Amino acid sequence: MAEVRIPFDDVLDKLHNVLLNYGFSEDKARLAASLFTKASLDGVASHGLNRFPDFLRMISKGYVKPDAEPVQTGKFGSFERWDGKLGPGNLNAYFCMNRTIDLAHENGLGCVALRNTNHWMRGGNYGWQAVEKNCIGICVTNTKPNLPAWGGSEVKLGNNPLVIAIPHQQKPVVLDLALSQYAYGKIAIYLKAGKQLPYDGGFDHEGNITKEPATILEKEMGLPIGLWKGAGLSLVLDLLISLLSEGDATAEIGQKEEEYGISQFFLCFHLPKLGIEEFPKDKVEAILEDLKSSEVFGEEKVRYPGENTLKVRRENEKRGIPVDPDIWEEISDIS
Amino acid sequence: MAEVRIPFDDVLDKLHNVLLNYGFSEDKARLAASLFTKASLDGVASHGLNRFPDFLRMISKGYVKPDAEPVQTGKFGSFERWDGKLGPGNLNAYFCMNRTIDLAHENGLGCVALRNTNHWMRGGNYGWQAVEKNCIGICVTNTKPNLPAWGGSEVKLGNNPLVIAIPHQQKPVVLDLALSQYAYGKIAIYLKAGKQLPYDGGFDHEGNITKEPATILEKEMGLPIGLWKGAGLSLVLDLLISLLSEGDATAEIGQKEEEYGISQFFLCFHLPKLGIEEFPKDKVEAILEDLKSSEVFGEEKVRYPGENTLKVRRENEKRGIPVDPDIWEEISDIS
Repeated sequence: MAEVRIPFDDVLDKLHNVLLNYGFSEDKARLAASLFTKASLDGVASHGLNRFPDFLRMISKGYVKPDAEPVQTGKFGSFERWDGKLGPGNLNAYFCMNRTIDLAHENGLGCVALRNTNHWMRGGNYGWQAVEKNCIGICVTNTKPNLPAWGGSEVKLGNNPLVIAIPHQQKPVVLDLALSQYAYGKIAIYLKAGKQLPYDGGFDHEGNITKEPATILEKEMGLPIGLWKGAGLSLVLDLLISLLSEGDATAEIGQKEEEYGISQFFLCFHLPKLGIEEFPKDKVEAILEDLKSSEVFGEEKVRYPGENTLKVRRENEKRGIPVDPDIWEEISDIS
Repeated sequence: MAEVRIPFDDVLDKLHNVLLNYGFSEDKARLAASLFTKASLDGVASHGLNRFPDFLRMISKGYVKPDAEPVQTGKFGSFERWDGKLGPGNLNAYFCMNRTIDLAHENGLGCVALRNTNHWMRGGNYGWQAVEKNCIGICVTNTKPNLPAWGGSEVKLGNNPLVIAIPHQQKPVVLDLALSQYAYGKIAIYLKAGKQLPYDGGFDHEGNITKEPATILEKEMGLPIGLWKGAGLSLVLDLLISLLSEGDATAEIGQKEEEYGISQFFLCFHLPKLGIEEFPKDKVEAILEDLKSSEVFGEEKVRYPGENTLKVRRENEKRGIPVDPDIWEEISDIS
């Protein structure tokens, strides 16, 4: 695939204009476009530009409502509950992380549970959002069923992406982790390339663990991280999210014809407000330095989550955002 | 190994009496003894009776101080910071989960960060403690380095056990999950039995993933759950815990001659206080029923975390606690 790079602002303007034609207000179109563009800027095209056509499809079908505004349904000190009213998942998540940050700046910690929302696209965006406001940020979303329970031969659990972000001016640590060992999109890339996965990624038809992409994709029998452990984690996160938000759990989402109306959870800590006078820059650095001093098997140093993101971001800021030519053509053709 | 079963109260009394001779007050001896006994009652002897001799060793060496009282070092609304003063890890964790529960009953959510504490033994105890008070409970501890970073050839990360517990009168869900695929103690049992692990559990000397217990144990190169994913999760949890508690991180614990003075984090939600009028019993049951309705590969139904615990507990309450005869003899011989 020939590399095509497009300047950040050109991508942003194009998406912005498309969204205006899909019923977004000026402000919402700008913000949603920037969240997609930033995902691609950070090297996460799978949840940036590449997902934009499907986002439009969900709007056209009426599952995602561009003009919906989140509504507060409960407030209890530093905890708030919101109803996303089926608005765009990225806008709702951005809004709720902002609320959580504000609550944390005010109280030291803040927590928001959100129901009736949609796919937040790239979860990492909201982790970066927190660290840019000097907060430790945690957020989790549930999803439709896309993983089997341990021992199960059908999908019952979500891969429920989890984001944990630690602020630091030069070295923020941002973990963006789905509970599946591989995304199905990634497995499809291996299939297309005629390659096995490098590590076990799912189950075959007898329930054995396998690296074979075709077998895994057939019934979407992906592997939860840590086998029974990730399966258990998926369940308790879904319970946590859906109970606190009074929203739909994975089982309920699975009853719908498409994945919409999901539930999410946001938690922030603002260290200075929690009596930690000086931001513990040195402590974070010491921990990361110790990690990076690790002896390694190969040539490359150990990396921490988010380390590569900043490098990729800087490069793409300079050289333009790498886009899949087919996707870019598809988006460019939308009036 | 012949099965030996001892009535709950006999185990409790024995441990209680031993602890009185190790400098514990009456109340503290009773509580610590009950936490050990309850772990074994629930079928987690590895972090119950079997760990008691090592607990005594840590006291004798002066790392664990039986008479230490936790001291509050900060209070900010529903967040509190405590210093464990190197007291017994199980007593400190029990105390801090209680504080967290009280804060949640008062404010809807409660959060406590704890530094200068010690190994909490069985983490699940504190999850059960939360659900018995109708709270969603989350707690995490860091540990000494006992897992490699992704690509690393030496231990740099902790297996940082994480507990998430969801209340329900008949069907509480309690996940107690270390970030290593297998505990080293478990791997040693396979080694002793001359068996391979059923799933990959660590790295060999070239950095390849292996099921071979001897190879894994040689350099303690255990596998983080989800490979690079669990390694990332370990790092961010350690940062979260050590920053919020102002306590030692895994790297700092690794500098010590033994694992002591570790850091922990506790978080609770009390649903009724968060405006959820009726406890959503039906919702939890519907989610668990959907999970358990999963088609399976084998004979057995899918299980949720904690389901088996209650069964084992009921059985051991009736028939006595199964003890390792060698361990029980060792404990019985302590005056």
